[in-house]
Amino acid sequence: MQWAISRRAQQLTSSAIREILKVTERPEVISFAGGLPSPASFPVAAMEAATARVFADNPAAALQYAATEGYLPLREFIAKRHNVGVERVLITTGSQQALDLIAKVLIDPGSKVLVETPSYLGALQAFSLFEPEFTSIPTDDKGLQPEALTAELTAGARFLYALPNFQNPTGRRLPLERRQALVARAREFGVLLVEDDPYGELSYTGDQLPTLLSMNPDGVIYMGSFSKILAPGLRLGFVIAPPELHFKLCQAKQASDLHTPTFTQRVAYETVRDGLLDRHIPTIRELYGKQCRVMLDALARHMPEGVSWNQPEGGMFIWLQLPQGLGLDSMAILEEAVKRNVAYVPGAPFYASNPQRNTLRLAFVTVPPERIEQGVAILGKLFREAIASAPQARAA
Amino acid sequence: MQWAISRRAQQLTSSAIREILKVTERPEVISFAGGLPSPASFPVAAMEAATARVFADNPAAALQYAATEGYLPLREFIAKRHNVGVERVLITTGSQQALDLIAKVLIDPGSKVLVETPSYLGALQAFSLFEPEFTSIPTDDKGLQPEALTAELTAGARFLYALPNFQNPTGRRLPLERRQALVARAREFGVLLVEDDPYGELSYTGDQLPTLLSMNPDGVIYMGSFSKILAPGLRLGFVIAPPELHFKLCQAKQASDLHTPTFTQRVAYETVRDGLLDRHIPTIRELYGKQCRVMLDALARHMPEGVSWNQPEGGMFIWLQLPQGLGLDSMAILEEAVKRNVAYVPGAPFYASNPQRNTLRLAFVTVPPERIEQGVAILGKLFREAIASAPQARAA
Repeated sequence: MQWAISRRAQQLTSSAIREILKVTERPEVISFAGGLPSPASFPVAAMEAATARVFADNPAAALQYAATEGYLPLREFIAKRHNVGVERVLITTGSQQALDLIAKVLIDPGSKVLVETPSYLGALQAFSLFEPEFTSIPTDDKGLQPEALTAELTAGARFLYALPNFQNPTGRRLPLERRQALVARAREFGVLLVEDDPYGELSYTGDQLPTLLSMNPDGVIYMGSFSKILAPGLRLGFVIAPPELHFKLCQAKQASDLHTPTFTQRVAYETVRDGLLDRHIPTIRELYGKQCRVMLDALARHMPEGVSWNQPEGGMFIWLQLPQGLGLDSMAILEEAVKRNVAYVPGAPFYASNPQRNTLRLAFVTVPPERIEQGVAILGKLFREAIASAPQARAA
Repeated sequence: MQWAISRRAQQLTSSAIREILKVTERPEVISFAGGLPSPASFPVAAMEAATARVFADNPAAALQYAATEGYLPLREFIAKRHNVGVERVLITTGSQQALDLIAKVLIDPGSKVLVETPSYLGALQAFSLFEPEFTSIPTDDKGLQPEALTAELTAGARFLYALPNFQNPTGRRLPLERRQALVARAREFGVLLVEDDPYGELSYTGDQLPTLLSMNPDGVIYMGSFSKILAPGLRLGFVIAPPELHFKLCQAKQASDLHTPTFTQRVAYETVRDGLLDRHIPTIRELYGKQCRVMLDALARHMPEGVSWNQPEGGMFIWLQLPQGLGLDSMAILEEAVKRNVAYVPGAPFYASNPQRNTLRLAFVTVPPERIEQGVAILGKLFREAIASAPQARAA
């Protein structure tokens, strides 16, 4: 029997990330592909103690249905950290769910949605289910270019989706003056900003730039996550929104999963309530900063001329560009890379339109230093070969 | 600033259930409104021991990102219980999420969706976000009437949504011969069946009727839940679907929340793997059966003539009908009931069309027996007054 499915489901194709995650399950593969945080960064002992307290305190409440908005003490904790009223905070089942809820509340078929070039693949997927028309905003190596936002470009846009801190996939951080310009232009043109910020705490030096939310709380939907500072297996994120949008997001959430698991919310709150994050996050910053330097050093040693990459100030990713104009496609090269037991994520799926196929994303946080060195050496050799045998290189 | 929101979000109105849950938070209210399972039924000690094992065994895996399909041992456990291949099983964040995913994959704006009369409010909400046209199928006190399904009624329907076991809100169980007739007609007319079965295990005598899934695995999407047999605060449900639909549901889930929390999946599996459900479910059946009898006895003592209700064989609900033809509206009467500190859920929101406003749902599982007696006595008096002063009664 062939069942009739929705138009949106017909458009769903197998995700590049899914296919790649399958490959990287082989232990011999050195994977720079995953977006997984390092398990070494999970505060296991603190979470185990917190869970014991949840069972000791009020297990019946921890295991019962609860309010859609989320566990009040956890919402208060978040509200305080972000200096907003608790009535604006909604707990979500990972920040991926926040993307789904935002799409439900804001996107009709054909709605204009502004995205960075490139942008987070998971967001493009979540939004796509609701059939928007994406408009790509130009970026350079500092991120989104606010001066590109004109009345014409933004006309009728439901929102602009941005990742100002250590963006997935590029690792770029938007400078302060660009944040100010972005908020000013968004205000001028009446564009709602959706700020996705899972990596904001992961600045290697600990310096943090103000969020877009802090610059204009009534014009920003802010998305945060415990996945990179506590543990992703809890699937805990949150969204801070202006009151009228908060209310709609809650209603959409109620229809989507009633509420995020009470149990994980209470475990997370018991884990962080005494200030653990202030002690714990610096250890993640140090770990990731060290891993990043190892990869940057290896890239400097092994990459052939013409390959370029950024120097992240935080986060989990480096964005690499193979020489332009040679017709190089990182997706095609990945097949050979995997044969040599190294994986990365090709850049093309991160573009809403006109993909730059010479780009790729490298994640460095879960790979031991000696394997980073080894994997980058293999990639360096492979890219050298690819450049030498590129269609345009041969033609020249 | 008034932001432009989606057409579906404009349709979202405050849910009757949400408003009622607020009222019932006052401790003096005797609430027959909640659909909450009894906390006395949560196997807390077993879950606490299971959680300790999860932390002891492999905490890094329990706290890390994982596959969208769900934790394989838990999927295998479910596949075995339902005698299907594990490749058909997808773990969801509560069965509410299964409703959302099914809607995403199967409903376009204007798609015909067949529902029982009345049907589960949470399903109507989840489906409504995707803007279907509901067609209500007639029911009587045994549930859905299969002979109502004709070629004309079912033409072009994306699916038929049914709760054959102890339906929410009516508590009705579909007899075996109706199940057989339903499956036969669905097959004849090419209608996909969506079987929602959170209460199937809660037969008071332990006798269970075959699922629609077991009668035609390739024509049924089956939804199950751990909420009523373990604990709802874990938000763990599952969906069993024919392979091509399973694949689409997984893709939709990936965009919706990546995966259900790894932590809760492992805790649930560690709780049930040694056969706990076989020992535990009989205790829930006994508890709920006893509570149901207390309410049935109280209803028989206190309800005025003309009020009728069913005698559930399982589940958590009794469906009550005030006399017809008097213009009685259980929603209007609820305001007075709450003033007298008793709550229930009015029947109207459970109808996709043409609500019968003289109906209401009573939940009995969380209220102590003496409070059931007290609350039903108050309702009996109130309904007697309402009947006496009903518009049509006065006019007569």
